[in-house]
Amino acid sequence: MQQKIIEGILNGDRRMVARAISLIEDEDSEKEAILSAIYPYTGKAYCLGITGAPGAGKSSLVDRLLLLLRQQGLRVGVIAIDPTSPFTGGAILGDRIRMQEHALDRGVFIRSMGTRGSLGGLSRATKDVVQILDAFGKDVVIIETVGVGQSEVDIIKYADTTLVVLTPASGDSVQTIKAGIMEIADIFVVNKADIPGADRTVSEVSMMLDLGGRARPWRPPIVRTNTLDGNGVEELHQAVINHREYLGESGQMNKARKDRIRRDIIDLIEYKVKSTIWKQVSGSEEFESLVRKIMSRETDPYAAAAQILGSINLGSLTR
Amino acid sequence: MQQKIIEGILNGDRRMVARAISLIEDEDSEKEAILSAIYPYTGKAYCLGITGAPGAGKSSLVDRLLLLLRQQGLRVGVIAIDPTSPFTGGAILGDRIRMQEHALDRGVFIRSMGTRGSLGGLSRATKDVVQILDAFGKDVVIIETVGVGQSEVDIIKYADTTLVVLTPASGDSVQTIKAGIMEIADIFVVNKADIPGADRTVSEVSMMLDLGGRARPWRPPIVRTNTLDGNGVEELHQAVINHREYLGESGQMNKARKDRIRRDIIDLIEYKVKSTIWKQVSGSEEFESLVRKIMSRETDPYAAAAQILGSINLGSLTR
Repeated sequence: MQQKIIEGILNGDRRMVARAISLIEDEDSEKEAILSAIYPYTGKAYCLGITGAPGAGKSSLVDRLLLLLRQQGLRVGVIAIDPTSPFTGGAILGDRIRMQEHALDRGVFIRSMGTRGSLGGLSRATKDVVQILDAFGKDVVIIETVGVGQSEVDIIKYADTTLVVLTPASGDSVQTIKAGIMEIADIFVVNKADIPGADRTVSEVSMMLDLGGRARPWRPPIVRTNTLDGNGVEELHQAVINHREYLGESGQMNKARKDRIRRDIIDLIEYKVKSTIWKQVSGSEEFESLVRKIMSRETDPYAAAAQILGSINLGSLTR
Repeated sequence: MQQKIIEGILNGDRRMVARAISLIEDEDSEKEAILSAIYPYTGKAYCLGITGAPGAGKSSLVDRLLLLLRQQGLRVGVIAIDPTSPFTGGAILGDRIRMQEHALDRGVFIRSMGTRGSLGGLSRATKDVVQILDAFGKDVVIIETVGVGQSEVDIIKYADTTLVVLTPASGDSVQTIKAGIMEIADIFVVNKADIPGADRTVSEVSMMLDLGGRARPWRPPIVRTNTLDGNGVEELHQAVINHREYLGESGQMNKARKDRIRRDIIDLIEYKVKSTIWKQVSGSEEFESLVRKIMSRETDPYAAAAQILGSINLGSLTR
């Protein structure tokens, strides 16, 4: 089966791609062999990250970009990260609606991913799915994430070019910037540019960029878009091309990809160590007895952690 | 010095508390001994978490609650989490302004904390500071966090009662809820209740709660507040008392605190393992050589992670 999935991905079989992604989401033990096998065929896709507050119009923008890229004959993969609460089940619903629109276009592959597990699994899974879509032959892989939290920032750092989408309607452009997203933006998009207040949002962002102080080799351009009529989407596309050229010519692309590999190896190691610890510790008698002792203040979490570390068998980590 | 800090905390010496918090922020090796030593004197403080989107008025609400709790003679600690970008330096500024207001009140201790390190250090540091303030004799410790990302959710899970602050002005109450914050709210606060649209926000939240489906033993109340005139703050305080009573009577308090200890031990173990790995791996020749081989597709991150895991010395973890 493993071999069939690997060959399927490399031969453009959508069903096998979907299968591989499911294995990744389920943290199936087979996923590693698949990801190792396809790795030599990756590194060709350009990865575009799109983030911004809920309601900023990211999905519509992605749809507009999709159409534009498809018109140029580029094959596009979209990973929509939707850390939706179990209450609404939005990820699955959104996925179905969007899949239908592009269902007849074989050059497009869209997948929504929701929050999984507690071990930083979503960020891990997203990176893995980018690899799959890359090996699958996508020229561009778009990662779309909701929100501005740390986990979203971690995910988006994997992109070559990151768009931060703001909207005048939210009235919180400066607040969003304050929340730490300024540094990750390669391009700012002021969406819903027809709404009153767009000028103010643009000038606020511009002012924040000036305030940054230190001279930056790439000053993020601010592009206005309107996803209702598609205005500004071509300019946005051009800005992405400009950034891509800048990355290539300045040597930043190579540097950034190297950094990403470094972070990726460390992430993988940490993830393996965490999983191993969790499996051995959680629910064990030693663990529960220590929990009781901490509750009664006979010991403390630091002493307990040290004791458990002494008894964990980390040998199983090294295969 | 260590002993002086420990005694200082237990004897109510503010300077020693500040010193201990600095050691925690700097990840000083002394912090563990201090935290272990004070642990027997913790567990008395009630921990209140306050979160919500930027601009929802959390700080003003905390100030109002502070005054109310102080009128009742309760000693209060406030930890304001502000993952501000290095561009603005908001955390320090905000800290100074707020410190001044309460500077003469010895019953209040306020500390702002910004983003630190990349190893989940903020969440770790916040928990540690709660312990310090608990041992210091605070009856109530308030954790105030900006935003709705995963890291904020992780931090706020440490609280006994969590307030989620919404505001009609932001127009994104439902969106905020969608982003996964619904589950962590014990009490919803609709702040700026004088603004048109407050009714709609209240009914939207109420509807979402009904949609949840499953019968919940505690249905989060929705409290309207206005921090300009203090309207609703007493009702909010009463809601917190009600929730505290519910937690005690239902046995949820004990269960939740046990769960928190479990998570805390695991976090500590993971944190130690991660730090050790980072120190040994980052910048090493083996690591950099693997990075180059991955860039040229001679190997892949999964194989590299396995190789490094084989050569890491985890023995040093067990003291």
